[in-house]
Amino acid sequence: MTDTAIVAAMRRAIAESEAAQGFTTPNPPVGAVVLDADGEIAGVGRTQPPGGPHAEVMALRAAGERARGGTAVVTLEPCDHTGRTGPCTQALLSAGIADVHFAVADPNPDAAGGAQTLRAAGVDVHPGVLESEARSGPLKYWLFRQKTGRPFVTAKIAATADGRIAAPDGSSQWITGPQAREHAHEVRGRLDAIVVGTGTVLVDDPSLTARRPDGRLLDHQPTRVVLGLREVPAAARVRDGSAPFVHVASRDPRAVVDALPDALHVLVEGGPEVIGAFLAAGLVDEIHAYLAPTILGAGRAAVSDESVATLAQAHRFRRSGLLELGEDILLILEPRRSV
Amino acid sequence: MTDTAIVAAMRRAIAESEAAQGFTTPNPPVGAVVLDADGEIAGVGRTQPPGGPHAEVMALRAAGERARGGTAVVTLEPCDHTGRTGPCTQALLSAGIADVHFAVADPNPDAAGGAQTLRAAGVDVHPGVLESEARSGPLKYWLFRQKTGRPFVTAKIAATADGRIAAPDGSSQWITGPQAREHAHEVRGRLDAIVVGTGTVLVDDPSLTARRPDGRLLDHQPTRVVLGLREVPAAARVRDGSAPFVHVASRDPRAVVDALPDALHVLVEGGPEVIGAFLAAGLVDEIHAYLAPTILGAGRAAVSDESVATLAQAHRFRRSGLLELGEDILLILEPRRSV
Repeated sequence: MTDTAIVAAMRRAIAESEAAQGFTTPNPPVGAVVLDADGEIAGVGRTQPPGGPHAEVMALRAAGERARGGTAVVTLEPCDHTGRTGPCTQALLSAGIADVHFAVADPNPDAAGGAQTLRAAGVDVHPGVLESEARSGPLKYWLFRQKTGRPFVTAKIAATADGRIAAPDGSSQWITGPQAREHAHEVRGRLDAIVVGTGTVLVDDPSLTARRPDGRLLDHQPTRVVLGLREVPAAARVRDGSAPFVHVASRDPRAVVDALPDALHVLVEGGPEVIGAFLAAGLVDEIHAYLAPTILGAGRAAVSDESVATLAQAHRFRRSGLLELGEDILLILEPRRSV
Repeated sequence: MTDTAIVAAMRRAIAESEAAQGFTTPNPPVGAVVLDADGEIAGVGRTQPPGGPHAEVMALRAAGERARGGTAVVTLEPCDHTGRTGPCTQALLSAGIADVHFAVADPNPDAAGGAQTLRAAGVDVHPGVLESEARSGPLKYWLFRQKTGRPFVTAKIAATADGRIAAPDGSSQWITGPQAREHAHEVRGRLDAIVVGTGTVLVDDPSLTARRPDGRLLDHQPTRVVLGLREVPAAARVRDGSAPFVHVASRDPRAVVDALPDALHVLVEGGPEVIGAFLAAGLVDEIHAYLAPTILGAGRAAVSDESVATLAQAHRFRRSGLLELGEDILLILEPRRSV
């Protein structure tokens, strides 16, 4: 098998895993490609929702008998343990796979050891193929949880170029344009939970669903989490049953993390005080700032953190992304601290 | 002469004119190239400070006898009137130029007619070469003044990603990084005046000079304009003599425009209420928003305009530029209205 064919197969596996994002929690979204003995793609698969088969098994099923003597290319080291599904190592051995290439070694002590098991059974195992792409791609949030024990938290603001999210009379629809809003809904559709404060629910009554531009729901809906001590009205849209709902009756952002023991990726959408509380608690791992080419000069600021008194206490980030979305931009920031 | 050679010469003339920006007011910054009869560059010139020769004369001087039977390529239609200098049309005719190519026709009724005079004297005249580049380049501000009778106004903000320009204790140095600050000084060095409010002078005591990163002054210094009813202290840095100083004892931004009858391009740097007043008066033609990858969550907002009550009254712009300057970005906005 040429290196080029393996790298091309890994790119395909990474692309496949992207489509699994949000659907596999608490399991990692993995992609797998099975090449036959001639190096042709015989099967492609991705992790199914919890309880369903892992990516390797899906790809092996698609490959059928062509897997025998073939090569498996997987974004994560094949698991070696029996959870809700059998170990992937056994499935690869039963199918007669001769070579396994994977991108990222499994840091989970329960599931790790796959490479060792495969080698002991005579399979050639090659770790590290496109490792950095796979780490920074769909596996990022799962790897973060493995390392830190909590979900990766993205804070989202959608503001004017002067940092306002509403005019003095409360009007805010729309500050950003359709392309930015569509991007934000696509992000919602790939993660596990959206967090807002009780104030946002009481004032704006958002549905917090992930929707297509035509209003239809995307296939995956994140859990709606409302943080705060006030009651969430029975008629609030977040309680409409179109996605799970959790009221975290606390003002402490850490209570949200505790309430989501499985979540890999959480989006904090506001209001300003909730985003400020997550920042002050050191619980923001990324910021998505959608900025419109508009100046308000009055109205509500995007972030409120009363713990900041002087510039030395500012929350310093580095720019990790910059997109043009129609008339708006999306500025993506990551903390300067390393995880 | 080939079209390619003319276009190349015009690009050179435009580049030359860029170096004249800020030095020629109230005259337009023009660039000129003289090609000899063989199509080789014989001379290049740009408009000198007021009272000095225009671009055509500088290029003709550099070309000397090689101008005879040659071609002049100029960013603006050669002037036909005797102001502080003689008409450029006569200089071109005396030098024996056979062909003249220019980018933009002169809209100024006093100076126009150059093309007609040249044609009447037997010169081949070709207007419109790279016209849009020349219009949107260094000639932009002069053309704006010809059309509207007032200077082009750029409002600058340098803020955090959440729109703050200072922490609650007033600390603000530095929110943006060295590359953004250097860019802002280069912009200062190409325009005619910088406007701040008396509040900014009393609180920050800025020098408002255009400086190199090592602190040395750039060759051109804009006039320092302070707007507001309060006194400007005798010891204020804006009065230190390193550049002209004007106190406009008014709260009305239109009084600044009236106080600068020659200015082509003015930069409004703050504070937030001064920028808001220019916005409310419809006197902002461009915004330069330098945004740092920092969140403050508290402190002073970049723009304050109490005339805005609801989102429909927001100042809507369109994005005309987006630069990455080190860790910061520069978002350039233009009004949706057309001039």
